[in-house]
Amino acid sequence: MAETLADIGEFGLIARIANEAHTSPEMALALQDDAALWQQGNSWLIATTDALVEDVDFRLCTFGWEDIGWKALAVNLSDIAAMGGTARCALVTLCLPAGIQVAAVTAFYRGMSLLAEETQTPIVGGDLSSSAQVMANVTVIGEVEDRDRVLRRSTARPGDLLAVTGTLGSAGAGFALLEQGTFAKAAPEARFIAAQRRPEPRLRGGRALIEAGVRCGMDISDGLVADLQKLCNASGVAGEVLLHSVPTDPAIREVLGDSYRTKAVTSGEDFELLFAAPRETMRRARKYLQDRAQLQSTVIGAIVPGRSGSVTVRDEQGRAVPVTKQGFDHFGVGENTRAGE
Amino acid sequence: MAETLADIGEFGLIARIANEAHTSPEMALALQDDAALWQQGNSWLIATTDALVEDVDFRLCTFGWEDIGWKALAVNLSDIAAMGGTARCALVTLCLPAGIQVAAVTAFYRGMSLLAEETQTPIVGGDLSSSAQVMANVTVIGEVEDRDRVLRRSTARPGDLLAVTGTLGSAGAGFALLEQGTFAKAAPEARFIAAQRRPEPRLRGGRALIEAGVRCGMDISDGLVADLQKLCNASGVAGEVLLHSVPTDPAIREVLGDSYRTKAVTSGEDFELLFAAPRETMRRARKYLQDRAQLQSTVIGAIVPGRSGSVTVRDEQGRAVPVTKQGFDHFGVGENTRAGE
Repeated sequence: MAETLADIGEFGLIARIANEAHTSPEMALALQDDAALWQQGNSWLIATTDALVEDVDFRLCTFGWEDIGWKALAVNLSDIAAMGGTARCALVTLCLPAGIQVAAVTAFYRGMSLLAEETQTPIVGGDLSSSAQVMANVTVIGEVEDRDRVLRRSTARPGDLLAVTGTLGSAGAGFALLEQGTFAKAAPEARFIAAQRRPEPRLRGGRALIEAGVRCGMDISDGLVADLQKLCNASGVAGEVLLHSVPTDPAIREVLGDSYRTKAVTSGEDFELLFAAPRETMRRARKYLQDRAQLQSTVIGAIVPGRSGSVTVRDEQGRAVPVTKQGFDHFGVGENTRAGE
Repeated sequence: MAETLADIGEFGLIARIANEAHTSPEMALALQDDAALWQQGNSWLIATTDALVEDVDFRLCTFGWEDIGWKALAVNLSDIAAMGGTARCALVTLCLPAGIQVAAVTAFYRGMSLLAEETQTPIVGGDLSSSAQVMANVTVIGEVEDRDRVLRRSTARPGDLLAVTGTLGSAGAGFALLEQGTFAKAAPEARFIAAQRRPEPRLRGGRALIEAGVRCGMDISDGLVADLQKLCNASGVAGEVLLHSVPTDPAIREVLGDSYRTKAVTSGEDFELLFAAPRETMRRARKYLQDRAQLQSTVIGAIVPGRSGSVTVRDEQGRAVPVTKQGFDHFGVGENTRAGE
């Protein structure tokens, strides 16, 4: 049997593509980091692209069209935030069945424009195509001040503390509620559903980290454990997470049950920032996040020597906790958490 | 009944979106031109995004995976050429069913990389997603020397001559052959099939036009008549095309039959350049195209006063020829020529 994508998975496929694709040494960062980075005249540009696909990333019965527009832009802005950059503009491709109502499409652009305005990211171009399945692809182009003033995955060192912004697991709780058919408009459920449908990219948070001197970070899109593995792998280090220190919404247990902590470190799409820094930088970073971006942050673990890319999650007694579900793979290797998989 | 996309069509939808989307006055060119243009530090950047969708833009039974990769990049590079720009880098989103073979995906990137290398457009980032239908979206970021050294649609003036590079109708002939199940490897059929599967973006041609002083142009993606209507509309002028002057491949009649001339001016995807310039500039432009880009070009008509956006096609006797099929609309308003519609 010929090898299919389901055999090697999304990350296996990325490795194969890295061998085939014509890249340029100084421009090839995106395979490892959240966005590509290159020099253009006297500027340092970054760019990222990401698609939302019907029945993979959202369902038309659980997302409104404004939500789809918002989230399609948000996931890309989160990659800009993950580099510590500033967004400059966005391009949008929308593929749609011809039977879709015009009002749905204008709602899509209205939802996207809410976030575009809030983040000063004008939509400068796009493409419309017919398709059997709804697909929204966004590219965001942004900038950083300098090639050294950027968050990378490869710069973690043993002894660094690890921290995250906000709370984890809320988007996963929202997903669980929507899949159960719960469309609550009241707190706390509405808060989880909003975390799933309308994530807030941490653009000001990313810049606050840069200003504080942090140089290692990424956004959490596939789940804390899976994303920390990528960060540790890029840095050639290991990571430890203290499960009971992971920040979660006070009401999350009502939705995710007693295993809410392991779910919070494995479910994706929170789009919070994960970052590593020495103790003194970490202290300043957490203050800057609070003062300049009104973002809570929590130290959740540390970078340790060890096998490159290995992540250990420990309970209050210091025992390693098995974590089986390690993020989302688009081609179905391992257990998946998103819609439609 | 609520209004659907099929009721208002692709271009009606673009007008609605223009009202909803958050844009920026100085960055909003892409709704009218082939790419967005903005200043970044001391550079002028351009960017464009375009998707190829299975059973809309290609069929898996008529395109190889290398062809899909090549063409997904080519259609975007053509938009950069249409602005007279230079490509800098590309980002690629590929959505695929999990059952697709790994070898197919590496072939996709191999085909794309052939063109990426030829045009010095490194692939710097991307996204992979699962989907029911194959969809390849590419964004190309490029640059122009100055905001005034760019091809626009809005700068045609009555008295300008109109010209095109290369020949028209070959991609349409290739499409017809493939739909008939003809996969000839010999000339002339192979030439038409290659025009459909592997269009050559006219990047050097676009730059030659800029150097010659041309400032009005676009690429022909939806068919000469439909695209000239857009150019005339943006410029507030009318256009005339002399049907017998339109350049076609000497063997095209064998494929498209006696009506090959009207088919050549209405079928899309040739990705040649259409440009307008006063006589003296036109003379220089055609010489520069030949000398600097090894591109033949042909004067096919002129810009005339008249109703904005109106295009008249005339035969050898000067009579207006009715042209019913006016380019491709993704949501099925009017007659369509692409696969799957």
